[in-house]
Amino acid sequence: MDRLLPDGGLALASLGEQVLQPGVKGLPLTEPMRQGAIGVQRWNVLRGDTSYPVALLKESALLHNLDWMHSFCARHGAVLAPHGKTTMCPQLFGAQIANGAWGMTLATAAQVQVAYRFGVRRVLLANQLVAPSDIHAMVALMKSDPRFEFMALADSEAGVHRLSQAVVASRLERPLPLLVELGLQGKRAGCRTPEQAMAVARAIKKAPGVQLAGIEGYEGLLHSHDRHHAVEAVQAFVAQLVALVREADKEKLFGGEQIVLSAGGSAYFDLVARGFAGVKGLSRPVLPVLRSGCYLTNDHGFYQDLTQDVDQREHVSSGLRPALEVWSMVLSRPEPDLAILSMGKRDASYDMELPLPLYVHRPGEPGAFGAEEAVDLSPGCRIDKMNDQHAYLRLPEGDPLCTSLQVGDLIGCGISHPCTTFDKWPLLLVVDDAYTVRYAVNTFF
Amino acid sequence: MDRLLPDGGLALASLGEQVLQPGVKGLPLTEPMRQGAIGVQRWNVLRGDTSYPVALLKESALLHNLDWMHSFCARHGAVLAPHGKTTMCPQLFGAQIANGAWGMTLATAAQVQVAYRFGVRRVLLANQLVAPSDIHAMVALMKSDPRFEFMALADSEAGVHRLSQAVVASRLERPLPLLVELGLQGKRAGCRTPEQAMAVARAIKKAPGVQLAGIEGYEGLLHSHDRHHAVEAVQAFVAQLVALVREADKEKLFGGEQIVLSAGGSAYFDLVARGFAGVKGLSRPVLPVLRSGCYLTNDHGFYQDLTQDVDQREHVSSGLRPALEVWSMVLSRPEPDLAILSMGKRDASYDMELPLPLYVHRPGEPGAFGAEEAVDLSPGCRIDKMNDQHAYLRLPEGDPLCTSLQVGDLIGCGISHPCTTFDKWPLLLVVDDAYTVRYAVNTFF
Repeated sequence: MDRLLPDGGLALASLGEQVLQPGVKGLPLTEPMRQGAIGVQRWNVLRGDTSYPVALLKESALLHNLDWMHSFCARHGAVLAPHGKTTMCPQLFGAQIANGAWGMTLATAAQVQVAYRFGVRRVLLANQLVAPSDIHAMVALMKSDPRFEFMALADSEAGVHRLSQAVVASRLERPLPLLVELGLQGKRAGCRTPEQAMAVARAIKKAPGVQLAGIEGYEGLLHSHDRHHAVEAVQAFVAQLVALVREADKEKLFGGEQIVLSAGGSAYFDLVARGFAGVKGLSRPVLPVLRSGCYLTNDHGFYQDLTQDVDQREHVSSGLRPALEVWSMVLSRPEPDLAILSMGKRDASYDMELPLPLYVHRPGEPGAFGAEEAVDLSPGCRIDKMNDQHAYLRLPEGDPLCTSLQVGDLIGCGISHPCTTFDKWPLLLVVDDAYTVRYAVNTFF
Repeated sequence: MDRLLPDGGLALASLGEQVLQPGVKGLPLTEPMRQGAIGVQRWNVLRGDTSYPVALLKESALLHNLDWMHSFCARHGAVLAPHGKTTMCPQLFGAQIANGAWGMTLATAAQVQVAYRFGVRRVLLANQLVAPSDIHAMVALMKSDPRFEFMALADSEAGVHRLSQAVVASRLERPLPLLVELGLQGKRAGCRTPEQAMAVARAIKKAPGVQLAGIEGYEGLLHSHDRHHAVEAVQAFVAQLVALVREADKEKLFGGEQIVLSAGGSAYFDLVARGFAGVKGLSRPVLPVLRSGCYLTNDHGFYQDLTQDVDQREHVSSGLRPALEVWSMVLSRPEPDLAILSMGKRDASYDMELPLPLYVHRPGEPGAFGAEEAVDLSPGCRIDKMNDQHAYLRLPEGDPLCTSLQVGDLIGCGISHPCTTFDKWPLLLVVDDAYTVRYAVNTFF
């Protein structure tokens, strides 16, 4: 069994059977093609075989990152429920679960439905469950499938009452497990103080139809350019979560067989794992659940930078590798220091940084830039603007490689923040290290 | 025939027949549902029937805008090839063509393939056609369907030679029509001077397999906060395009039966139409082609602001109306002046402005805010941040309506820049003025 294409049941298999119509971004189709037939085409991105822009996942980096995170969790005694909202890619969900993930984290009821449809059977909804239709949808999954494990967050007594009433009305035969969300002053959802969190925990204990399954927080919101300060703030927050678990356990508020203690985005998950390790002596076992979503692809910007800090703190030399690239073509060379690329806001993240130009290649003339394979671009090259469908690549004056850049050349870009690139691609191509396309994966946004 | 659901052939009809799975954003599905069955559900967004976030198109505004632009073009003797990249929505393409559009403009070969599949038979590709796979795909459409009219841009002699070679090799039996793109110093693609443009026009005249069909530019890049300056710059650029047409005609460079003269985004199309009017006395008729994409939905921000200037310049009192709204639910009220909404970077534009909170409603308690229908939010309310799946709604201190805002309340937002909201929704709901869902439309990004 391929580690990246695990047996995920009929729904996952059906993606390979679906017929793609011409007009899917990145694919060079003039006739409909079965998705599963993509691999045998042996398209090579550097040879100019695909359409551009095209979004690529490097298989070797994905496999490395799966192993890396599996070892990390084993070392720290934590389990992983990777945040599926990053990719919303059923094949990658399947790969994550086949490679040791305990379950999936998701952000919305619709995302949970997608994950369930493709075989995910344990979900942490890292969000409040509020809309009647969403409560109904989640309860319907729990009722129809007793094996389906689901838990959601709560951060107010009012929210708990809403949920409790809806669950009781639904005649669900098992309690809906809830994690109390501890938040941060000035930040997103979540109780602002441990006292408020305890009040919500007590409300859950009292309310019919729901059960206190654990405590949750999201330390990623503490990101700051002062790295030392961020680390201290995360450590303090993680300690608060642990203290809250102990206090709620002392009051006997938890139901179920274990206590879920969850935090951990993609920047400080090592601090979370260390802070959660060894919480013992409670009425039932504590399960530390990390939720990193971006570890699987990492990136060339924001997360690469932050996970290099993780490597330092963990004393590991081989860290997470960037797996996601967007390749585009030079459409125009209107000025000596400007190339216009066939890639825009519809194709690559622009919320944290603009795409990072890394490589250049001339299809059909493999030696054009002095090497057979793609060549590194000069560090002075940068994308300084994107429109909906175009990027502006600025070239350093006098750089010989850049001077020779011409219409039809390929530019490979890294991105910063995988979540906002995945959501621009209904289909991404998985490539080997020579940029030959192995197969396609799908997203459901 | 419904003006918004025209007869667009089998492919368009098939969208109503497709079966939607649970997990499509905005839909409250727990079982698969045929898309065409959405209307009979009579879901009402204010009643809390859908899932949230949900993206809505107001039918009355769409119809108004279709009529408005049709009258505008008739008045100015121009035709419309609306930029389909804005919506990438086949049903809206169909409505635009059924309501008088001459053709569609698109930005990429993949977009052209989508439009062709759903019945569009005249396309202006407002972009350079460079990648071999894209040239192949466009030529394949032209070869397979003699009725399919297609034209693309060219801005360099090198690009013309590339295209010419590829077309000749393809044995296409009619010439590929090209428009020379006049650009702007420091901006996107396009020739930087009329002299360069003339050189490209001459290259097209000489090259086999291609034909000079017209002159093109995009004045929208001249947008500036100095409105007076922007208007003058646009007028000067439009005059340059007209002069270029005259010069190329004098040199007898055009082929075909008419000369396409095209510009016009969604901000200054009136200046373009006025500048293009009455270009006569050439060797063949001149067809002014406007390309506004955002007129159909307008918005509550960037484009509303700019099209109000159009109204002033045109002396019309009833301008384009915003048709696109994103509704989300209050998930958390963690601080007195903060509400967390179920809508984020995955759901609404954030490239020009963050979403603009407009309305509030409490489902199940229609009078909660003093009226049966949705109530205007205080002008002091603003969204000051979005994460991937959440928005931060800041509430003015002491405002009674805001103070009473609670978990489960609905917030209706306008957006700024429709292109970057459409691309976040595979399916949008068309609603009547009472927010009852009439039917769904699809996007293909």
